[in-house]
Amino acid sequence: MNHKINPEIITSLQQIAGVSYVFSDAETRKHYGHDETEDYNFPPEVVVKPATAAEISAILALANEHEIPVIPIGGRTGLSGGALSIHGGIGLSMERFNKIIEIDERNLQVTVEPGVITQALRETVAEKGLFYPVDPSSQGSCFIGGNVAENSGGARAVKYGVTKDYVLNLEVVLPNGKIIWTGANTLKNSTGYNLTQLMTGSEGTLGIITKIVLKLLPLNKHNILMLVPFYKAAEACEAVSAIFRAGIVPSALEFMERDAIDWALRYVEGISIKVKENIQAHLLIEVDGNYPEVLFAEAEKIMAVAEQFQIDEVLFADTDDQKNALWKMRRSIAEAVKSNSVYKEEDTVVPRYELPKLLHGIKEIGAKYGFKSVCYGHAGDGNLHVNIIKSSMSDENWQREVPKGIREIFDLTVSLKGTLSGEHGIGYVQKNYMDIAFTTAHLDIMRSIKKVFDPNNILNPGKIFPDK
Amino acid sequence: MNHKINPEIITSLQQIAGVSYVFSDAETRKHYGHDETEDYNFPPEVVVKPATAAEISAILALANEHEIPVIPIGGRTGLSGGALSIHGGIGLSMERFNKIIEIDERNLQVTVEPGVITQALRETVAEKGLFYPVDPSSQGSCFIGGNVAENSGGARAVKYGVTKDYVLNLEVVLPNGKIIWTGANTLKNSTGYNLTQLMTGSEGTLGIITKIVLKLLPLNKHNILMLVPFYKAAEACEAVSAIFRAGIVPSALEFMERDAIDWALRYVEGISIKVKENIQAHLLIEVDGNYPEVLFAEAEKIMAVAEQFQIDEVLFADTDDQKNALWKMRRSIAEAVKSNSVYKEEDTVVPRYELPKLLHGIKEIGAKYGFKSVCYGHAGDGNLHVNIIKSSMSDENWQREVPKGIREIFDLTVSLKGTLSGEHGIGYVQKNYMDIAFTTAHLDIMRSIKKVFDPNNILNPGKIFPDK
Repeated sequence: MNHKINPEIITSLQQIAGVSYVFSDAETRKHYGHDETEDYNFPPEVVVKPATAAEISAILALANEHEIPVIPIGGRTGLSGGALSIHGGIGLSMERFNKIIEIDERNLQVTVEPGVITQALRETVAEKGLFYPVDPSSQGSCFIGGNVAENSGGARAVKYGVTKDYVLNLEVVLPNGKIIWTGANTLKNSTGYNLTQLMTGSEGTLGIITKIVLKLLPLNKHNILMLVPFYKAAEACEAVSAIFRAGIVPSALEFMERDAIDWALRYVEGISIKVKENIQAHLLIEVDGNYPEVLFAEAEKIMAVAEQFQIDEVLFADTDDQKNALWKMRRSIAEAVKSNSVYKEEDTVVPRYELPKLLHGIKEIGAKYGFKSVCYGHAGDGNLHVNIIKSSMSDENWQREVPKGIREIFDLTVSLKGTLSGEHGIGYVQKNYMDIAFTTAHLDIMRSIKKVFDPNNILNPGKIFPDK
Repeated sequence: MNHKINPEIITSLQQIAGVSYVFSDAETRKHYGHDETEDYNFPPEVVVKPATAAEISAILALANEHEIPVIPIGGRTGLSGGALSIHGGIGLSMERFNKIIEIDERNLQVTVEPGVITQALRETVAEKGLFYPVDPSSQGSCFIGGNVAENSGGARAVKYGVTKDYVLNLEVVLPNGKIIWTGANTLKNSTGYNLTQLMTGSEGTLGIITKIVLKLLPLNKHNILMLVPFYKAAEACEAVSAIFRAGIVPSALEFMERDAIDWALRYVEGISIKVKENIQAHLLIEVDGNYPEVLFAEAEKIMAVAEQFQIDEVLFADTDDQKNALWKMRRSIAEAVKSNSVYKEEDTVVPRYELPKLLHGIKEIGAKYGFKSVCYGHAGDGNLHVNIIKSSMSDENWQREVPKGIREIFDLTVSLKGTLSGEHGIGYVQKNYMDIAFTTAHLDIMRSIKKVFDPNNILNPGKIFPDK
């Protein structure tokens, strides 16, 4: 903590944002001190809730002059600690940037402020027959700005891509207080360096995003959702790439280990799915489009692929209620695990065919270091969430042994041509594994880019880059 | 020209790349001194044809030490002068990097060297049932590395995106001679700053790309191609966004002014299309997929939209030969124009609904400054190529008046929330218009990023950034 926030700074912040939007009380600070990352709480020294880019510009100019950390805070659903004020400073809550500015139906675009909740955005554009496909599990409470900052994915990324594939243009306040638009509101752009893509996924370390222009698609009218139980988890993983090789691009292709589904079923009420005792894993598979007969044909092809493996009876969700129940189950896994035990979550990603090797390796590494893991995630993208369960492990082993195991998991991931994070970001909790994915020369370039934008290192310090 | 290339440098280059791959003769230098940009020729002082990243690393280390410009040269089909050695130096021809290293059918990826011709790549993966969608008009001779450097688009970008949407990972030699991989071979990646996307479209100014990992899709089996004649050009532009608003995403949606199609028909032999006298423009529209009945339904919907405007009889291409003929006509427009007159090509891009305003404005500006223009391009993306024809204009007016007109065209483009280049890059010929698209603060950031990678400004100097 730098403890530079004195009464004069507070007064200046009040002058900029208004007295009623500056908070120094312990309760508010604690509230904004956590996201969904393990059980961490790093409160900012002061919480400010600005409403305009001009206010943020003034705040950053002030912070830059006094070298005070500024931490952009969104919906606080992050899983890598991106919103934690680990060096104190000013917690910049973006919650008042909550307007959908314009839905441009003629150009299939939406201009939105970063504090809009992703699900609200998706539902609002859907009312106009438009589709914003990116749907992180936290979509009911996460902010679209946080999605851009972390380059979030979700279940539909397998067909529709991740946040970066929809970001056309960003209004950004730079640490020096200047405001720029990173690009243009166009589908194609070969005009200078792609700062839009550089900003997307930069985890609040290069600038504060204040407006976002997103590409939209026409809304698909139909989908089919099926749950396929596999007797062997490895075969469920193998089926994933087999489905693509059969020429199908599903709109979702989710893998859930047995434990994941059991925990979720205990956690979520009112979902009645019977799972046979010797089922090791499930795939949740969706196809979408405008022509039901095509979807039936694709579902049949998927069934034909799945039947090459040892599977039990496939459940087709017949009604919207059934579909919602299955998705609720899938989306509740992280919370269900969290309610059971202290845990660490890793966000491994590999080329999808390597999933069986990754899953097998994770279990072996767990056995070696004495931890249990629950694995699930966006298998179609090769993106496997690994929940490492503390359960009855001693605190000492949890602190000492588990990080060694995680390092081995990431070594394995990178050896399979994958990397550390598919959609959660590096943030605070993965930063000391960055040397596994990148050479020193590479990290030096990233550090120098950070310095171009933020020479005084005020924006979200202590994130992404390994401790020296 | 810096004239630092003395006999010792030549000897060093020969030691690195082999005597038979270093060329100082005037003919070779002239050959590598041009691309397809107007009638420019800026020969490098020496041409080197390395074969490995290690050789390039040694060349860059040498060039960096002596501050000699290095210009990466691909298929020389560029339209913004990206491959021109405007400050002399070492012309680095990438033609020996011509191997498709691995087609990974299990992961739907291909690893390729930058000197592979794009069409060859597309055809080779198609033999395995895989689809690389990006198809610039120059695909028969352009290099995939050049496509990455310029973030090239093409006719299918409207449905499938541009080069950047397929680049997963790049091996890059940095100006200091170090070799890095920018990312991982994964579909999702939230691990550090996105150097893959920063490098894509950086026009050879940040590093030399030596390997490319691209995402592939399953190959679609069917398509329907139709040519729709419009009595009014403005209505053809309006129909473009109307098609999307009807919920259709065509796989190509190309606009051609009357002159473009006339010139192409005169230039290309053996295509018999009769165009009525008072037709002002055509749309070339393709839908693709795996289910013919769906494509018929979509073609019908497109017809229903088109019939809301004043159109003549629609031509459906029944055979592959007819389809190829239509595409050949479309792809030959630039060459046809070039064969008729000296011209300048601009690569304007706007949100697609703004196309009619853009087209109207371009004609007004042309009238004001006394030039004729032929407009065509990827209307589905809002990407309009503007060929400004010299014809009988005096050299003086061509040099003095036309740049003023171009500046007004770009002013208009940016005022419509578009930008300077959709897919050709800025390179040499558009750099002095960059102030229209970007503030000084923004350009300063781009310049500083350039300096992070290339402190001595050896890589492709004099490109992208405006003269000071």
